[in-house]
Amino acid sequence: MSRWPSDGRERLRQAALELFAEQGFAATTVPEITARAGLTTRTFFRHFPDKRAVLFVDEDEISEMVARLMAEAPAAVEPMALIRDGLRVLAETRFEGRRPELRARRALVATDAGLQERDLRKRAAMAEAIRTGFLTRGIDASRAALLGEVCATVLSLSIEEWLDSDDPRTLDHVVQATFDTLRAELG
Amino acid sequence: MSRWPSDGRERLRQAALELFAEQGFAATTVPEITARAGLTTRTFFRHFPDKRAVLFVDEDEISEMVARLMAEAPAAVEPMALIRDGLRVLAETRFEGRRPELRARRALVATDAGLQERDLRKRAAMAEAIRTGFLTRGIDASRAALLGEVCATVLSLSIEEWLDSDDPRTLDHVVQATFDTLRAELG
Repeated sequence: MSRWPSDGRERLRQAALELFAEQGFAATTVPEITARAGLTTRTFFRHFPDKRAVLFVDEDEISEMVARLMAEAPAAVEPMALIRDGLRVLAETRFEGRRPELRARRALVATDAGLQERDLRKRAAMAEAIRTGFLTRGIDASRAALLGEVCATVLSLSIEEWLDSDDPRTLDHVVQATFDTLRAELG
Repeated sequence: MSRWPSDGRERLRQAALELFAEQGFAATTVPEITARAGLTTRTFFRHFPDKRAVLFVDEDEISEMVARLMAEAPAAVEPMALIRDGLRVLAETRFEGRRPELRARRALVATDAGLQERDLRKRAAMAEAIRTGFLTRGIDASRAALLGEVCATVLSLSIEEWLDSDDPRTLDHVVQATFDTLRAELG
């Protein structure tokens, strides 16, 4: 049995992550990735616009998930309750159990200024997805923007703290603790 | 009397901003900027690493200002009081009275994905300056990171709201109102 998944996209992704870890992001070329995956360069570019995109595959999926969770919540649910529940679902389905892999990804992003800027854009896309979700729910523009930004900020900081430590807290616990700290700071 | 300031850096900056406004950011070259300013390309590169940097001249100055304000505040001042007073000084000295110029800059940044990513990095640099300031003041790491990020987020959203409107509120008023909204949301 092959160690490779049958799905071409996931196969390319795993080959790329291996090579990035072995020889660095900058030194790795698309032909090297496709050679290791046993696929063609053409196949690579059908799945990804460039090698950077390999590290951001979940961005669209997360934005879609945010949009769906926000559209499905009953109209009566208050913004902060929606954020609390939504971040719990996100943490449990997309982050929990992946700590080693996400740590490796973070270490890689830290090596490259272009990847760091792209990572900031990922966070901005998350804030934007939440903002749009609240606008659709009839929340006014400046409140929707604030909720989107603060939610993306709290999630991002909580992920950092969770990846930094080996304590057994779930990401969702860290997120709730970060909101509690923020509430206490603002007084 | 020349309409150009005698300072080479400011002269290059004004020439660049004029050309960006007339023909777009992407279409403007460094030789065009230096020709309009009546200076050499060599002088340009003594002041700026590239044409993008012209739009981010105040970044280092603002980070230095943040560091100084935070170092000078008496040790007894609480974090939120420090943030409130610091943002007031920043708003009054760096933003107030510059609304038309800052609107033009914002419109320009919106035309270019590279400028947008760079603008996110500017905000990250501000968050980092505040975080470092709080660490130096003995605040623990995760609290310092949270204060830095939330402060940069609130300032950035407040600037957007202030630039969007023609109402006579000062930026500092908008900043304080944004903190009030956030406090109310968190409940």
